[in-house]
Amino acid sequence: MMRGCTGFCILDIMNTAAKQGSVGAVTARKLHFDAPLAFRGGGVLDQYELAYETYGTLNAAKSNAVLVCHALNASHHVAGWYEDQPDNIGWWDNMIGPGKPLDTSRFFVVGVNNLGGCFGSTGPASINPATGKAYGASFPVVTVEDWVVAQARLADELGIARFAAVMGGSLGAMQALQWTLSYPERLANAVVIAVAPKLSAQNIAFNEVARQAITTDPDFHGGDFYKHGVLPKRGLRLARMIGHITYLSDDAMMEKFGRTLKSGAIQYHFGVDFEVESYLRYQGDKFAEYFDANTYLLITRALDYFDPALAMGGDLSRAMAVARAKFFVASFTSDWRFAPERAREIVKALLDNRADVSYAEIDAPHGHDAFLLDDARYHALVRAWFDNIYTSLNAP
Amino acid sequence: MMRGCTGFCILDIMNTAAKQGSVGAVTARKLHFDAPLAFRGGGVLDQYELAYETYGTLNAAKSNAVLVCHALNASHHVAGWYEDQPDNIGWWDNMIGPGKPLDTSRFFVVGVNNLGGCFGSTGPASINPATGKAYGASFPVVTVEDWVVAQARLADELGIARFAAVMGGSLGAMQALQWTLSYPERLANAVVIAVAPKLSAQNIAFNEVARQAITTDPDFHGGDFYKHGVLPKRGLRLARMIGHITYLSDDAMMEKFGRTLKSGAIQYHFGVDFEVESYLRYQGDKFAEYFDANTYLLITRALDYFDPALAMGGDLSRAMAVARAKFFVASFTSDWRFAPERAREIVKALLDNRADVSYAEIDAPHGHDAFLLDDARYHALVRAWFDNIYTSLNAP
Repeated sequence: MMRGCTGFCILDIMNTAAKQGSVGAVTARKLHFDAPLAFRGGGVLDQYELAYETYGTLNAAKSNAVLVCHALNASHHVAGWYEDQPDNIGWWDNMIGPGKPLDTSRFFVVGVNNLGGCFGSTGPASINPATGKAYGASFPVVTVEDWVVAQARLADELGIARFAAVMGGSLGAMQALQWTLSYPERLANAVVIAVAPKLSAQNIAFNEVARQAITTDPDFHGGDFYKHGVLPKRGLRLARMIGHITYLSDDAMMEKFGRTLKSGAIQYHFGVDFEVESYLRYQGDKFAEYFDANTYLLITRALDYFDPALAMGGDLSRAMAVARAKFFVASFTSDWRFAPERAREIVKALLDNRADVSYAEIDAPHGHDAFLLDDARYHALVRAWFDNIYTSLNAP
Repeated sequence: MMRGCTGFCILDIMNTAAKQGSVGAVTARKLHFDAPLAFRGGGVLDQYELAYETYGTLNAAKSNAVLVCHALNASHHVAGWYEDQPDNIGWWDNMIGPGKPLDTSRFFVVGVNNLGGCFGSTGPASINPATGKAYGASFPVVTVEDWVVAQARLADELGIARFAAVMGGSLGAMQALQWTLSYPERLANAVVIAVAPKLSAQNIAFNEVARQAITTDPDFHGGDFYKHGVLPKRGLRLARMIGHITYLSDDAMMEKFGRTLKSGAIQYHFGVDFEVESYLRYQGDKFAEYFDANTYLLITRALDYFDPALAMGGDLSRAMAVARAKFFVASFTSDWRFAPERAREIVKALLDNRADVSYAEIDAPHGHDAFLLDDARYHALVRAWFDNIYTSLNAP
């Protein structure tokens, strides 16, 4: 179960997959890295593995590669399905494939599971070769900057000196932004969707409650639950329920669930009365079965810490001055997690630097989840953007 | 510790108390009721107690009484302080007192702790005389309608046939609304602040996560934790943290905490880095010390279930047709828990019935908590409203 969808997207993805071309059956790969990786926050991994997938063909000039970065609970499985798991469809399959907005008949697309993850790359549940036991609480606190370093090493191994684009939504978009700062010469374009240049106090607050739910679960054991043979499912479940509320707009929730009663009448109890309760419990239960609690902590902390302007005294325009990419920035009107005003902060900082930036504010009702959905106007804009990239790749 | 404040109001209250007249030292009283009370959702209390306070003097005509209904974590301690607890100031002390918007030199003000509460009225932690043990999970699921019935019985005992006004904010405002439906002839005015005619799916979702945090705490023991000598503090703490996020606007949180670091630098850990984390943990810890977990469940469920339009097929205008009171309705622009659009639904339903309604949409940055704060424009409007009531009381 490696779903990148945070909400209603599964049906959409399936509908889209039926309509449009798919990259088809894909294979997850792993690369082992022996060069130590020192983390920004302290700690070193002497060796590690990255799980990744690729779709399409790298051209002779090696100029058509696109890196797709994932958000909280997604993975390297971005498009297609697995031969032995035909229902396990990649989390951005509606966006990526032959003839789709990011067209795999033109581009070589790379998806990678981030370090600290729980879908194949080295993470807290992995065995530390130095001890023979799971890393658990000893896994380094990882930042967006660290992920980008690891992604660049993967690019080296794949022979990609420069990406045609680095692309992501939400936390994935933070990675695309960071690429323009850490390796400004190594990408031509950045596709930055549904994100802010840093979390607000409210964003951090939601993350903190989720983390507190996990770390105060008696089964968490300070992060070393693996050796106790238990999982902090209660905490993960609550964390996921909180997350789901923030992924959807109030209106989308009202549209989808309203005050509909599961059994048609109020039961006067603390079980499920309203459909929305059933939905949250189901999503929470499902998530707690497959996601790693330490990964959840690490990823939410990476979100909290991301703040490229911090080193420049809070001046985002100064921070973005080193960027050389062309930017496509998009936000969604009903996204209250990362509202359009927040995306405009990024656009302003880029314009202050006379960067080449296109900005789309898309009128969509679905909240933060909109970036994963099959919205015709949104997809048309991404398609046009990649058409331009493709044209420039093949310009004389 | 009986604070009605949901956020930043403590300082405001203290500042205000220093500036304006206070009702001074007050005494909490209790009344015992022997007539059984059958709850709407099933269950009966054969006997029960209500804790209450009064301020000011009931006039000879018994026409100047105002009932103030409380919201989630407040109580009958609405104004003043206790002789032996001078710092325990009533939760709406900035609103109520001699010379204050609700002027106790003119009105006889009644505050009551609702049934199911944990501050003196019979609730889940009370001893069930039939068993000699705490009610715990056996306490009836209580609704806004049930509270209003109990409040009317208290009014009977106090000799109040008709209130000059029933007033509340948030869940307290739902009780004021219910009064106009359950006992339309028993109140002249309803003061309805910062509320919606029913919860949205998102509102219910936040309540549900809070309840799930409590009921999945291993110390909850199905609601009968009293006999185990433990308290589900982990769950209550998380519930309170979630609540606090919804009481404040994103902007207010950013203004108050921003991304300020507790120790001046990022620590790369899962302890407290940001001020907002420290705030939430502190509020959660404090709340878990004094609030009853079963009361939290009951009160959030009463919120979920409140929906006066339900019996009329969702038609709020038809539901409000029985109301006879004059209405003052107020909302706050930054309140995303109960946004102004929701208050306007109430106003529309009242206007559809040609009711006498004044509506104020107050431009305030503090979110839902604004109803508890000392905002000059807001207080001036409430003051003017009660001035009118006072004038009409004394009209020939």
